[in-house]
Amino acid sequence: MATTEDARAGPAAGLTSWRDGPAKRAIAEFVAHVCGANGGDAVPFEERVAVFDNDGTLWCEKPMPIQLDFILRRLVAMAQAEPALRERQPWKAAYERDYGWLNAVMTEHYAGDDTNVEVLAAGVLAAHAGVSVEDFEAQAGKFLRGAQHPTLGRGYLEVAYRPMLDLLAYLAANGFSNYIVSGGGRDFMRPISQEVYGIPRERVIGSTAALAYNSDEHGGTITHEARADYLDDGAEKPIRIWSRIGQRPLLAAGNSNGDVPMLHFAQHRDKPSLRLLVLHDDAEREFAYTTGAEQALAQAERDGWTVVSVARDWGTVF
Amino acid sequence: MATTEDARAGPAAGLTSWRDGPAKRAIAEFVAHVCGANGGDAVPFEERVAVFDNDGTLWCEKPMPIQLDFILRRLVAMAQAEPALRERQPWKAAYERDYGWLNAVMTEHYAGDDTNVEVLAAGVLAAHAGVSVEDFEAQAGKFLRGAQHPTLGRGYLEVAYRPMLDLLAYLAANGFSNYIVSGGGRDFMRPISQEVYGIPRERVIGSTAALAYNSDEHGGTITHEARADYLDDGAEKPIRIWSRIGQRPLLAAGNSNGDVPMLHFAQHRDKPSLRLLVLHDDAEREFAYTTGAEQALAQAERDGWTVVSVARDWGTVF
Repeated sequence: MATTEDARAGPAAGLTSWRDGPAKRAIAEFVAHVCGANGGDAVPFEERVAVFDNDGTLWCEKPMPIQLDFILRRLVAMAQAEPALRERQPWKAAYERDYGWLNAVMTEHYAGDDTNVEVLAAGVLAAHAGVSVEDFEAQAGKFLRGAQHPTLGRGYLEVAYRPMLDLLAYLAANGFSNYIVSGGGRDFMRPISQEVYGIPRERVIGSTAALAYNSDEHGGTITHEARADYLDDGAEKPIRIWSRIGQRPLLAAGNSNGDVPMLHFAQHRDKPSLRLLVLHDDAEREFAYTTGAEQALAQAERDGWTVVSVARDWGTVF
Repeated sequence: MATTEDARAGPAAGLTSWRDGPAKRAIAEFVAHVCGANGGDAVPFEERVAVFDNDGTLWCEKPMPIQLDFILRRLVAMAQAEPALRERQPWKAAYERDYGWLNAVMTEHYAGDDTNVEVLAAGVLAAHAGVSVEDFEAQAGKFLRGAQHPTLGRGYLEVAYRPMLDLLAYLAANGFSNYIVSGGGRDFMRPISQEVYGIPRERVIGSTAALAYNSDEHGGTITHEARADYLDDGAEKPIRIWSRIGQRPLLAAGNSNGDVPMLHFAQHRDKPSLRLLVLHDDAEREFAYTTGAEQALAQAERDGWTVVSVARDWGTVF
């Protein structure tokens, strides 16, 4: 007689928005292996950890990362309130809607020149300096619940990828703890992580400004400072995973070069592991791009990571 | 008819090692309030967060913090292997078992002079520089499972306070998520936190050395660097609580000045909260001391925090 556990761990039950193919099969085989459905030992529940990059892996990051839209609107508001800022980057670009400058920053970054990335980062950090964590969360939540994606004709909370939502639910049903491990802002994602992904706030790992605590009559206030604590990207991702969870994940999913160390880190001598790399190759239903993913794609080829093609593997995207 | 929830939230069920008195009553009333047993709204489960300092709050910290014993043994081993270290502090003090030097460091620290604290800290960080997080964990776990407390006649895993273990279990039974928030090393406590406290490794917050990630053929290695990432004490405690959990706790328990910001942070306009300060006043069954707790005791008096007297409130200590 099949038990509930067997049924859950069965061949890709619940992955309804995935097309049959190698990626869906790899997921089903991995989960079956973890659950001991193929005759081996099941991995204990407390070790079933899965980590997911957010931008470009769980939700759409084009034409610009969602948090960048949030920050640009804040920079515009600052430039409206203080005209002198209109002559300084990044306020100037934000105020003039000069996406050329912003795109050039990223092009320079990929070419190894971070001069303007630092100019942009300083503006980003200044944008919310002195704001309490509660106020920041309220602003982020309001934006995410209210703003529309610029081209997809839907709200930002509806640009999460349906197949990845299916995957998160499938893993949770099989005893996994899912975590977000994003280069984006930890406290930007927290207000909506449970609602959109079923991931509670304490399982959101991401970049953050340094924080300061000041005592007051309301139990003290924690505010954002105008400097980064760390950028949760590249080699910092496994470090933050260890710091927060204290384990190597069994499954890691990403889409860009900054995810390579995290995917590499999900490797075990004696337990199954799965590395998923989302390939954006569907200009019709989403966007097609590989800029910033070149090393990741090469390493996926070399190490046998599972490439998830949006065009081929996903029956529906949103 | 009493429901299971009512029974759990009943007057201090499970707090068998606590004596009847104001501290036990305050705990029972707080939990009843959180569970809605007194007619108000129950606090949602996901908001039932409790945070505990470790040294001196959950387990014994005298005659020296347990981790200091671990580190001193490592310094001795280093001095044995490398004679030149025997002339340098803190190796010299460790090698000569010169507890006078170590006590003087703490006395100077309480008096505001951290010169020798920095000397000690540099030695502490050098003691495990270059060690992988897995190896560090194995060493810490082996030490904690094998070493004896110097005066209490029991192993280190048996110097956790029985009443605090009862409290952790009582809170967990009432839907709380318990976290350790220690000035001690996060990765030092992780190997035994589940076994001793029922607190899983991802809920252990503490100090840490900076970590480095290096790619290799085994999925990369994370190693300790010879510098601190942060010291989880004082104002850093609420910051680390926010960073990890993303919420203000309902309950915070500590025993020293470094716990004051964390206890102060557990305050809500619209939800119950409880602040517990353990007072070590029982030289016969444990230790009696208030050095390093003067500000905490003063603030407890001023703000009405619940002081837990070892002598008066605990029927058994271990």
